[in-house]
Amino acid sequence: MHYKLALIGFGNVARSLARLLIRKQDLLKSQHDVTFSFTGIATGSHGFAVNPDGLDIQKALDLVEGGQSISSLSSTDVKDSLAVINNSQANVMFENSPVNTQTGQPALDHIRQAFDLNMHAITANKGPVVHGYRELTALARSKGKRFGFESTVLGGAPVFSVFREAFPLAELISINGIFNATTNVILTLMENGEAYEDAVKYAQSIGLAETDPTNDVDGWDAAIKVAALVTVLMDTPMTPQQVNPTGIRGITPQMIAKARAEGKRYKLVCSAEKVGDKVTASVSPQLVDSTSPLYGMMNSSTGITFRTDVILDYSITLSEKPGMKGGPVETAYGLFADFVNAVK
Amino acid sequence: MHYKLALIGFGNVARSLARLLIRKQDLLKSQHDVTFSFTGIATGSHGFAVNPDGLDIQKALDLVEGGQSISSLSSTDVKDSLAVINNSQANVMFENSPVNTQTGQPALDHIRQAFDLNMHAITANKGPVVHGYRELTALARSKGKRFGFESTVLGGAPVFSVFREAFPLAELISINGIFNATTNVILTLMENGEAYEDAVKYAQSIGLAETDPTNDVDGWDAAIKVAALVTVLMDTPMTPQQVNPTGIRGITPQMIAKARAEGKRYKLVCSAEKVGDKVTASVSPQLVDSTSPLYGMMNSSTGITFRTDVILDYSITLSEKPGMKGGPVETAYGLFADFVNAVK
Repeated sequence: MHYKLALIGFGNVARSLARLLIRKQDLLKSQHDVTFSFTGIATGSHGFAVNPDGLDIQKALDLVEGGQSISSLSSTDVKDSLAVINNSQANVMFENSPVNTQTGQPALDHIRQAFDLNMHAITANKGPVVHGYRELTALARSKGKRFGFESTVLGGAPVFSVFREAFPLAELISINGIFNATTNVILTLMENGEAYEDAVKYAQSIGLAETDPTNDVDGWDAAIKVAALVTVLMDTPMTPQQVNPTGIRGITPQMIAKARAEGKRYKLVCSAEKVGDKVTASVSPQLVDSTSPLYGMMNSSTGITFRTDVILDYSITLSEKPGMKGGPVETAYGLFADFVNAVK
Repeated sequence: MHYKLALIGFGNVARSLARLLIRKQDLLKSQHDVTFSFTGIATGSHGFAVNPDGLDIQKALDLVEGGQSISSLSSTDVKDSLAVINNSQANVMFENSPVNTQTGQPALDHIRQAFDLNMHAITANKGPVVHGYRELTALARSKGKRFGFESTVLGGAPVFSVFREAFPLAELISINGIFNATTNVILTLMENGEAYEDAVKYAQSIGLAETDPTNDVDGWDAAIKVAALVTVLMDTPMTPQQVNPTGIRGITPQMIAKARAEGKRYKLVCSAEKVGDKVTASVSPQLVDSTSPLYGMMNSSTGITFRTDVILDYSITLSEKPGMKGGPVETAYGLFADFVNAVK
């Protein structure tokens, strides 16, 4: 079976995905008899291109990474992302537009359109999960297609599929975790004596924190991930606004020194607990001691602990080494895994 | 669909499984339209019973836990495990006889017989995995049945299914882990100043270590788990003898004190690495520092780190609190999960 792919959003993660697909193309063919071509690409600031007969993906990568537009590759004149989706004749749409925490747009509309046109929709974008999970899941089911979002929480490391595939009929009681790499790097550096401002600058220098670090340091990135997990795994719609996060700006070097003297650490802890039908969720700095699975997660490492009625504390950790970036390749793998699971 | 179940082995784990199945029976019915009855039970020292119309499981639990034989429950005279399998008319056979590290028997024969009679075979027994994986997998496939063994490595916490379901087309480069709870408890206690002999006694008192702790402290339990993981996930047959483990008897209080002073810990580390087609595996005490995902695994906690070509260090930890036993309920859940995945 041949799959035509549309890439909506062509930043680091989407370009890593394109390279990963190329690297794994022989395995896809030999293991699952799947081949693919790229028939639509929408970029943020380097134009749009479609060609149902296949675009030259290497040329597209080179153009964008050289700062040039890809519109010369297009067989038809297309001026926006929806036009790319509509004209790509794709079987699978990868949605990687920038996250909008408040509304989930424009990703929501892209995914609706993809399902309307009988495509699978796969995204690393948390917005449509928290703002449209039930609607999009129902839409996907009605079309016999897959809504994939494995890359939204732990940077492409499997989380949703682990709980959904490997914990049949288990009841999820609570989740606890560290979901934001930037704040974990900052807290690690502060523990080593660096000032908050310097730690933020370092996180920016390695490409982890954005120029305006608000989304990370005030807890919004963590909150939307908690909301996504609660929405999907606890079957309870939740928005980041309802999580109402507290960030790390209030943590002083004095507090960190005191914690350290007591053998403890501040972590930006994400939690959700289900009691009956009621879910309470939070994101806030917490003191954790060495008995916590979160204590050992340093630098840009992230992780989650599931507590269920059958297996008590089951933790997944994605360990990153100092100086390593969260990794577009890892996030790309989550998209790739969703693709394989959709087509195998 | 109604499933008849045979329980070959009726120790703590199998009895926990029976109770878990009863607790989850409404969910099985509502989610997967699955019902079940117990039609065969083989115990180690409390007799054998079959009844294709269904045995009274509560009565069987009461009898065994009261030290009595279950043979009065049987509709036919049966005298051994194979006779139970043959006369149970079961659709699913749960194999929980004692582990034989050297040969995998008699579990191997039980599982062969189950497949011959068109049953699914599900086991918490590591023996048949390391001594018969390829044969039994081929046999299961030829019959359209499942060979399930999720409970063999991390006490029922999902490991095999995580890698097989959630890491499609990923290449497994290495595994590292702590697979034996008893030695981890002993090392934790020795770090707190207890003598080796006292630590062993404590592990025995909480039901974790056996009267003869050789299998744990000399690394054989860890080695058979490494061998099982290598055999299945690295597609390379390996026996515990080939792993050739080194246990923890050589670790002195002096060594532990020195490690502690350097911020390190001794752990009984299980490793396997695949380079090309060659796998090297080991079990031995290793010094780990606080950057290792294994450093924080204390008491009877166990865990594994997968390194792949796409996601670097992905760790699964099953955290146990001090004094908690490894948990027959958790091991039972691994068997239950295999059952649900076989019949859903």
